[in-house]
Amino acid sequence: MVTVDLNKLPNAEKIEKESRFLRAARREPVDAVPVWLMRQAGRYMAEYRELRKTYDILDIIKTPELAREVTMQPINAFDLDAAIIFADILPPLEGMGLQLEFVKGEGPVIHNPVRTASDVEKLVVPPAEEALWFTLDAIKLTREALDEREVPLIGFSGAPFTLASYAVEGGSSKNKVNLKSMMYSDKDAWHKLMSKLAQIAGDYLLAQAKAGAQCLQLFDSWVGELNPVDYRQYVQPYSKQALDIAKDAGVPLIHFGTNTNGMLTDIRDAGGDVIGVDWRIEIDKATEILGDNVAVQGNLDPVALHAPWNELEVRAKDVLDRMNGRDGFIFNLGHGILPTTPVENVKKLVDFVHEYSSK
Amino acid sequence: MVTVDLNKLPNAEKIEKESRFLRAARREPVDAVPVWLMRQAGRYMAEYRELRKTYDILDIIKTPELAREVTMQPINAFDLDAAIIFADILPPLEGMGLQLEFVKGEGPVIHNPVRTASDVEKLVVPPAEEALWFTLDAIKLTREALDEREVPLIGFSGAPFTLASYAVEGGSSKNKVNLKSMMYSDKDAWHKLMSKLAQIAGDYLLAQAKAGAQCLQLFDSWVGELNPVDYRQYVQPYSKQALDIAKDAGVPLIHFGTNTNGMLTDIRDAGGDVIGVDWRIEIDKATEILGDNVAVQGNLDPVALHAPWNELEVRAKDVLDRMNGRDGFIFNLGHGILPTTPVENVKKLVDFVHEYSSK
Repeated sequence: MVTVDLNKLPNAEKIEKESRFLRAARREPVDAVPVWLMRQAGRYMAEYRELRKTYDILDIIKTPELAREVTMQPINAFDLDAAIIFADILPPLEGMGLQLEFVKGEGPVIHNPVRTASDVEKLVVPPAEEALWFTLDAIKLTREALDEREVPLIGFSGAPFTLASYAVEGGSSKNKVNLKSMMYSDKDAWHKLMSKLAQIAGDYLLAQAKAGAQCLQLFDSWVGELNPVDYRQYVQPYSKQALDIAKDAGVPLIHFGTNTNGMLTDIRDAGGDVIGVDWRIEIDKATEILGDNVAVQGNLDPVALHAPWNELEVRAKDVLDRMNGRDGFIFNLGHGILPTTPVENVKKLVDFVHEYSSK
Repeated sequence: MVTVDLNKLPNAEKIEKESRFLRAARREPVDAVPVWLMRQAGRYMAEYRELRKTYDILDIIKTPELAREVTMQPINAFDLDAAIIFADILPPLEGMGLQLEFVKGEGPVIHNPVRTASDVEKLVVPPAEEALWFTLDAIKLTREALDEREVPLIGFSGAPFTLASYAVEGGSSKNKVNLKSMMYSDKDAWHKLMSKLAQIAGDYLLAQAKAGAQCLQLFDSWVGELNPVDYRQYVQPYSKQALDIAKDAGVPLIHFGTNTNGMLTDIRDAGGDVIGVDWRIEIDKATEILGDNVAVQGNLDPVALHAPWNELEVRAKDVLDRMNGRDGFIFNLGHGILPTTPVENVKKLVDFVHEYSSK
């Protein structure tokens, strides 16, 4: 158990008040557009690949000192406006009784997927402090490390639907037939499962804020596989439940999904101070649909980071021009950064966002 | 070379005038909403699986009598309002010089993918009559078989971007890094490639109409991976070129994509009398965005066919209610039917669409 007195961190109040990232999330004016990148700590960085020679993903996530080290790698390398704790959306499922493994070349596998009402019944809902103490400790340690850099820290959780997708499918899945079949044919099991996952996600987010996270992001990466009518009936209440629990923390909440451009208002209505937008829509158009009461985050195509700088610049500029000086905008990718991304483009992009938007 | 005198088919004129499907595509009033299903001939049908014990996919596609047999399987089993010629979007790439193989469990593989300007240079653009004679012959034979059933036949082609995706990536690809990298970094090669593919797709569509197809669909299945700005600059002109060539046939054109809900007007502006809509948006909302000058096709979630009938019915009814009696609507799925689909649900769905909408 790590003990860090967050109240004694010298820059805590200053960060809270002055961080571009937190200000933008609250729709306050900023001197330059803040930028961070989903999965900014990861395989595209040599420092991370080096560490992975010794440790596997779960080792790093479950060892607070290692999680802090990896979280800091992109902060040390680039002028990012926020750090995000190095973790994964799946460990909360382990605490519920599911056997998780990251299989090389295949991705995450759940060895005992949830398929029946009785499987749902068996899932336990432990407090985050018990099941996910390692990430909470990692947050405390990282807050300490970030304080002198005056960079705020983001905590996160998978959203109930995205967690359910892994829990029921047993891994990544293109069409999500098992998942949707449970939703269609066993409503009782579905609602119990989603209710448990909402509790897990909300509690985990809240615990991360208590541990020191200054902003929280709910990742609903796969929600865009639903039609909006099913979303509103079977999913939105649970995303709302998770976000409502997290709201008690009093920190800004980011609500992120992909392939959601036909249901942006439904995503917004589930909650969140900031809505994540993917690259499949012009960000000004998405902002118009979302309205004035939320901030937006996005929306560069992650693949654009593979372009020669002049082409990447054109695309970054396009995003910035579309949001031209609007308060409540956080520059990010539309989804996680890819392992094949050239590091030098990340550096140039981060600097460009600041320079261009502070003119 | 099959010789069928299409002008002598007794019901040709009647179909042209009275087919619900063709009428809806032209935004004329219909007695009931027409329905067909993308990939309606395929693995979910026992008849198809039986044939596949003896023949592989390319055998069937390249043997006009077998392609006709498979095309007719769903027409024999269900009360569908249109047939679609059994083919695949990839054989046109073979004619251009690419080595195509369907690898079991992996899907299509191109053994010599297009990666450089010199690879693009080498691609040939043969006339469809020479490179794709088998599908044109299959169309003639199938038109004969369909005439007495009074069912019209759809021909199709992959759109330039979707063809380019396979040609450059060498198979299915999640992030399309190679494809987009060519677009970003070698514009000259990109435009030459897309120009060749537009010519191939347009010419192929036109040839299918000449062979007897009474409607043509351009499949841009992967176009939704682009941001709209890149789409307009690098892709839309070529989709438009292909559709413009096909327009000479004088038959209705369907323009289909998925994950396009942030760029529906851009898809529409490339051309097509009917725009395909996936399930990630309410179809009335998509219709409103698309405006009054096009028909729409869609948009049931293909996974919904795995639901118990009462739940499937709710979702089919929702789509029909949203389009409540509007002319210019073709009921379909939002993407291809899945191999795991229960056949009895397909039968019930097709009948339900007719019964419910003719009330």
